[in-house]
Amino acid sequence: MKVSTLSIGDEVLFGEIVDTNSAHIAARLYDVGITVRRHLCVGDSEPDIIEAMEALAGSNDFVIATGGLGPTVDDLTAKAASKAAGRHLVLNDDALAHLQQFYEKAGRQMLPGTEKQCMLPAKAVLVPNPVGTACGFVLPFKGTHFFFLPGVPGEMKRMLEKTLVPSILSKLQRKRVVRTRVFKVFGLSETQTESLLKDVARPDQGLSVAYCVNFPEVFVKLRIEGDDETRLSALLDEGCRGTRDKLGDFLVTEGEDTIDTVVARLFKEKGITLSLAESCTGGMISKRITDMAGSSSYFLEGAVTYGNPAKTRALDIPAELIAERGAVSSAVAMAMARGMRRKSGSDIALAVTGIAGPDGATTDKPVGTVYLAMAGPSDCKAKQYKFFGDRDRIRAMTAFTALDWLRRYLLSI
Amino acid sequence: MKVSTLSIGDEVLFGEIVDTNSAHIAARLYDVGITVRRHLCVGDSEPDIIEAMEALAGSNDFVIATGGLGPTVDDLTAKAASKAAGRHLVLNDDALAHLQQFYEKAGRQMLPGTEKQCMLPAKAVLVPNPVGTACGFVLPFKGTHFFFLPGVPGEMKRMLEKTLVPSILSKLQRKRVVRTRVFKVFGLSETQTESLLKDVARPDQGLSVAYCVNFPEVFVKLRIEGDDETRLSALLDEGCRGTRDKLGDFLVTEGEDTIDTVVARLFKEKGITLSLAESCTGGMISKRITDMAGSSSYFLEGAVTYGNPAKTRALDIPAELIAERGAVSSAVAMAMARGMRRKSGSDIALAVTGIAGPDGATTDKPVGTVYLAMAGPSDCKAKQYKFFGDRDRIRAMTAFTALDWLRRYLLSI
Repeated sequence: MKVSTLSIGDEVLFGEIVDTNSAHIAARLYDVGITVRRHLCVGDSEPDIIEAMEALAGSNDFVIATGGLGPTVDDLTAKAASKAAGRHLVLNDDALAHLQQFYEKAGRQMLPGTEKQCMLPAKAVLVPNPVGTACGFVLPFKGTHFFFLPGVPGEMKRMLEKTLVPSILSKLQRKRVVRTRVFKVFGLSETQTESLLKDVARPDQGLSVAYCVNFPEVFVKLRIEGDDETRLSALLDEGCRGTRDKLGDFLVTEGEDTIDTVVARLFKEKGITLSLAESCTGGMISKRITDMAGSSSYFLEGAVTYGNPAKTRALDIPAELIAERGAVSSAVAMAMARGMRRKSGSDIALAVTGIAGPDGATTDKPVGTVYLAMAGPSDCKAKQYKFFGDRDRIRAMTAFTALDWLRRYLLSI
Repeated sequence: MKVSTLSIGDEVLFGEIVDTNSAHIAARLYDVGITVRRHLCVGDSEPDIIEAMEALAGSNDFVIATGGLGPTVDDLTAKAASKAAGRHLVLNDDALAHLQQFYEKAGRQMLPGTEKQCMLPAKAVLVPNPVGTACGFVLPFKGTHFFFLPGVPGEMKRMLEKTLVPSILSKLQRKRVVRTRVFKVFGLSETQTESLLKDVARPDQGLSVAYCVNFPEVFVKLRIEGDDETRLSALLDEGCRGTRDKLGDFLVTEGEDTIDTVVARLFKEKGITLSLAESCTGGMISKRITDMAGSSSYFLEGAVTYGNPAKTRALDIPAELIAERGAVSSAVAMAMARGMRRKSGSDIALAVTGIAGPDGATTDKPVGTVYLAMAGPSDCKAKQYKFFGDRDRIRAMTAFTALDWLRRYLLSI
């Protein structure tokens, strides 16, 4: 099965936007055992799109093209594809109905000119777009199936999952069995992870292990490929068991799960409530907690006590304690956690105070000095960290570390 | 001048790594007036590399290829290039001298096998690598100059600046002047923006206007290209003035600035302080405000009053008001803003309450219903919004709208 991608768009060609679509498509297909042969990218130009289609046709079974399906004058993909395939560009009734429904559902007026994106090659098969206005379409050209999708990543991904991957898989003549599993690790470096898992791979039996830093986590990918499903599944399961054993509680989660979804699930399972007091993270942890639908069942409230007077006012931290120990100290972190817990009435409260930089460092407290504290029914603990990098990195690392503490705590009770 | 890029590497082809190199090269060349024609990406395979070289030769003056020059067995670029060009692969003495110097300077032992990266096509012209071990090289092939560079972005970028850009510019027969300006628009759709600015472009005089959705903003890019710098600058300035006039206060910012940096600058300029009370955004707005270094000079504190009891406890919202009008109402939004302002002592307070979904909708308040309120020294105003999309999109849209209200308010005082 030969598949290539084609990215269409001046903004991608001229480097204003990095092409993440072709990487996503290739990675997704790789997971189901299909190796993409090449990526091609051209601009919003009719002759260039046609030339690219000519170059990819024949030598590929499928081409997945993205971009250039919008309503503006520089969106030329449908027109170029029509011309290449020698078809008329016609108003596609189903695409128009979809567009009208989309606007109706949103309670908005359809703007004039929007219907341009319903002008598609005659007899093109529609690829429904569940989340946006521009439908995709399939066009056979010189023996190759060209799928055209919008370039908006969120829309492209949904259409890839819902229509393209099933359609391509149904056309595979000989099913090669490919299975992958992803493990997400926090608290170990890539080298430490690799050395811990050095015995998991079985290259002679088709089981490989790959490592990839996805800051601040390390992703471990087990991949097995072969013919005998039963034997491969057993081998992969054995590899997964070994991986889990070796990683212990450095293993945050597996597969599509993230630390955010894991923490959300654990809070629901354990039935306890949370409040947060944030200084240097300035609301990042609350934001991540409330990113999760249903978080109102366990998250009561947060206080972003950015300045010192706010710490005193909102959390009753004595001004003398701040003056004496410094706002960035384990004493203040613990007082923040205790104050937040008492005020909100939550079961546990987590607090963070630190120096994210670039300003605010002192001789004994350099940029990256961070204190986390957690107050529970029976006790209150603080931990000191020293993180590296710029402001964004220190804040992201702090928020992740806080979530990881919540995860470890929830697993322990 | 015709230029294309060629990315070589399984990790890029299979989507493990997003190809940022070709975007960087294209953007850099675009800035000096050279438009890249296409990007091609193939894996670490000799026949595929040769096929790609054949496909790009002839129709391009230059091809900038990256990747596959390292010391491991899957680095096949030099070998494939030799074969394509019909040259022997020979040990390049200059490359070897560079490699030995590199290790010497670093005080490290050269590992066995490392000298493999000095095996280059006979008579290839070296491209020095000031920051890494693998040298690049230039190879003429069917009338096209192929530049081969390492795939490590930091090394590639240095070599691009130091050798390639000067070398390509020196071959430009006629220097073209190219200038671009970017405008960021919020509150108008792509179609509305385009129709507002329809008279700005002067295609006959080399001034073009391109539009690109960068949710939730629309980016407008003015680009001018030609020979006469003075005339072009005047034309571009005129286009920029027209763009600013037409966009009015829908224009958030220009160039590298973002709404976050604009709001931060305005707060510092105006010398007023801010506090935030967030319900459905759960800390997102505080997070964005505190993303900016130095925000402690104007941001006092935030309250993430996610549950109703928290609204009553932290902001003194009467429970009766919530029961009567609903937590998602203009009355509660205003009470939150007033309460936050009074408690924090800030000059202005902004509050948000809404239904981000998927749960929480009622018949008269569907998912996406959001109220923002701002309390200042003299008055308090609320606005109702109806946003579309999923939870993430509604929350992002709410946060951006809040920042935009702050921007507009700060500009008005």
